[in-house]
Amino acid sequence: MTQLYLIRHGIAVERNNSIQDEVRPLTELGKEKTQKVAQRLKEVKIKFDIILTSPLLRAHQTATILQNAGLTDRLEEFIPLSPGGSLQLWVDWWLNSHYHHDQSTIALVGHQPDLSNWAEIFLWGDTQGILVVKKAGIIGLNLPTSINPIGESELFLLTPPKFFI
Amino acid sequence: MTQLYLIRHGIAVERNNSIQDEVRPLTELGKEKTQKVAQRLKEVKIKFDIILTSPLLRAHQTATILQNAGLTDRLEEFIPLSPGGSLQLWVDWWLNSHYHHDQSTIALVGHQPDLSNWAEIFLWGDTQGILVVKKAGIIGLNLPTSINPIGESELFLLTPPKFFI
Repeated sequence: MTQLYLIRHGIAVERNNSIQDEVRPLTELGKEKTQKVAQRLKEVKIKFDIILTSPLLRAHQTATILQNAGLTDRLEEFIPLSPGGSLQLWVDWWLNSHYHHDQSTIALVGHQPDLSNWAEIFLWGDTQGILVVKKAGIIGLNLPTSINPIGESELFLLTPPKFFI
Repeated sequence: MTQLYLIRHGIAVERNNSIQDEVRPLTELGKEKTQKVAQRLKEVKIKFDIILTSPLLRAHQTATILQNAGLTDRLEEFIPLSPGGSLQLWVDWWLNSHYHHDQSTIALVGHQPDLSNWAEIFLWGDTQGILVVKKAGIIGLNLPTSINPIGESELFLLTPPKFFI
């Protein structure tokens, strides 16, 4: 199994007419909560072989907080993690990467409802909208590496940040 | 929504010929991890209106640790939480109790694979074996109160104890 963590960006400045959605930054509270989540992940000795992030500022800032906490040595932007991006593009990337093996641990930082949709597709093949993912919340999936992971994965973690604080 | 927490008993003495399954106690490590889980639930201000527990010793001890941490004022044994028990009996109990309303928070302490099976039935109507629930692990569900919760509930929490320690 590859361990895949899907992490939602922290609390960002609200949408408004004076700022483009792509550059809405995390609020101070959003940074603080994300740092606590990062700290807890560090305490339980999680290390990501790579973090892929949506290029949107609020996601990239979230991923950078995780990196600065020592959770990974490798952080890259991944365009399909933008809102509405394609799960299949990520699966194709994974299948052709050197992270497609049973000891790898990968984090994706992105947006709702895409993250819960992706998780649901991995778990049971379609989207039902039944996973509640708060900002700075985390989904943890075990993806099989010997068969197609769609509809064949396991869920081992779903948590809002409040349990980490 | 009623918040329903499904909590698996902590680590117990292994099965062996010199002890009946019903009276296998928690180990010291099992008690310790369960206490840490209870402490964390207390820190995030969770309070259960009632804890129902399987009558088996390892479950009852787990429920008692939760009660002693101040997480509930009310603890009762509930026979259908024994291994292989009936989800419908619990639903019937709930529908006829004064806990069937949108502000209630209920915890059930029991066994695997029943807890993940019950959760999966609440979430999508049947069992697929895709939720990983460790000992002293927790599943958190939102159950709608205006319609039948089978296949209509949401998952907001799934965590092994290690994130609480």
